[in-house]
Amino acid sequence: MVSSPIVNTYPLSSYTFGTKEPKMEKDTSVADRLARMKVNYMKEGMRTSVEAILLVQEHNHPHILLLQIGNTFCKLPGGRLKPGENEIDGLKRKLSSKLAASSSALMPDWQIGECVAVWWRPNFETIMYPYCPPHITKPKECKKLFVVHLSEREYFAVPKNLKLLAVPLFELYDNVQRYGPVISTIPQQLSRFQFNMING
Amino acid sequence: MVSSPIVNTYPLSSYTFGTKEPKMEKDTSVADRLARMKVNYMKEGMRTSVEAILLVQEHNHPHILLLQIGNTFCKLPGGRLKPGENEIDGLKRKLSSKLAASSSALMPDWQIGECVAVWWRPNFETIMYPYCPPHITKPKECKKLFVVHLSEREYFAVPKNLKLLAVPLFELYDNVQRYGPVISTIPQQLSRFQFNMING
Repeated sequence: MVSSPIVNTYPLSSYTFGTKEPKMEKDTSVADRLARMKVNYMKEGMRTSVEAILLVQEHNHPHILLLQIGNTFCKLPGGRLKPGENEIDGLKRKLSSKLAASSSALMPDWQIGECVAVWWRPNFETIMYPYCPPHITKPKECKKLFVVHLSEREYFAVPKNLKLLAVPLFELYDNVQRYGPVISTIPQQLSRFQFNMING
Repeated sequence: MVSSPIVNTYPLSSYTFGTKEPKMEKDTSVADRLARMKVNYMKEGMRTSVEAILLVQEHNHPHILLLQIGNTFCKLPGGRLKPGENEIDGLKRKLSSKLAASSSALMPDWQIGECVAVWWRPNFETIMYPYCPPHITKPKECKKLFVVHLSEREYFAVPKNLKLLAVPLFELYDNVQRYGPVISTIPQQLSRFQFNMING
């Protein structure tokens, strides 16, 4: 038999959550965001961003940690790499910036695992595709999603303007209206994994 | 950087297609199919099925080979494992039955690669999920999708009642109406691969 990669998932209750100073979004509108993207593209070329799928379990079903901004918009923790930055280092830096306490003693052990999806932005627009569309020779962004393997106990410090939610796979699945095309197909991308549910 | 698994994709024109005797579907309706599934479940327990993602390229964009039955319904080549049968052996057996000439000299070299998705059928119904839903302790089917790495030249013999189509990823993407939930999310599951497009 072909062996599936294994992800240990611990109960949500085995993690501790605190707060830290707000991390404001750099842009206040989608238009601002796309305009800033364009300016950065002129300076640095294609944007590469990296995002983390952090898994916990409740009732023996996998849940993903999402950051909620305001009342509706959810995103994965992560962000843009600096020019030339390594993907693993960049994702660790972004995760620490978004979810770690400032004390290095409390820094989670970010074990960056498998890349599960790659999305391409062909133009300075919101739409992305899970392939670089034909005839697009200069995509504007490449976004990679990684499974991050969490240890049994960690302390997360959540910026005060954000909420950290544990969302079950069955809530994400087939729910593009609420979570968008990238997050709503994470259940399909994780389907090849074997979840080792560890009860606390 | 994290390295992506590589899939060599050759032009559709590098393959040769012939025909062979019809392979009729075992069931003439969805109701018959679910009834047969129930009978088999009573005898053998959960059904495990294996399906192949065979990739070719046209215009440097990946295409997937699908079998079309009648005018609309498309499926991946593959089928049900025999009780106790190994996944790799079973998928090779099914691929040969559906797509190979009877002469062993013309048998394609089926190199079974990565498992990219696993789907679960909780009940004797058509709906499947990319996870085993909570509270389901006895799923009725587990279906696994594998990338199959094709050699540069192969001969495929297609049963006369079926058509073999090469469908581009951009046609499958976000097209659940036409291809169903399993096939329409293959582009997302393949997004982590790097396609090495080889021109003939």
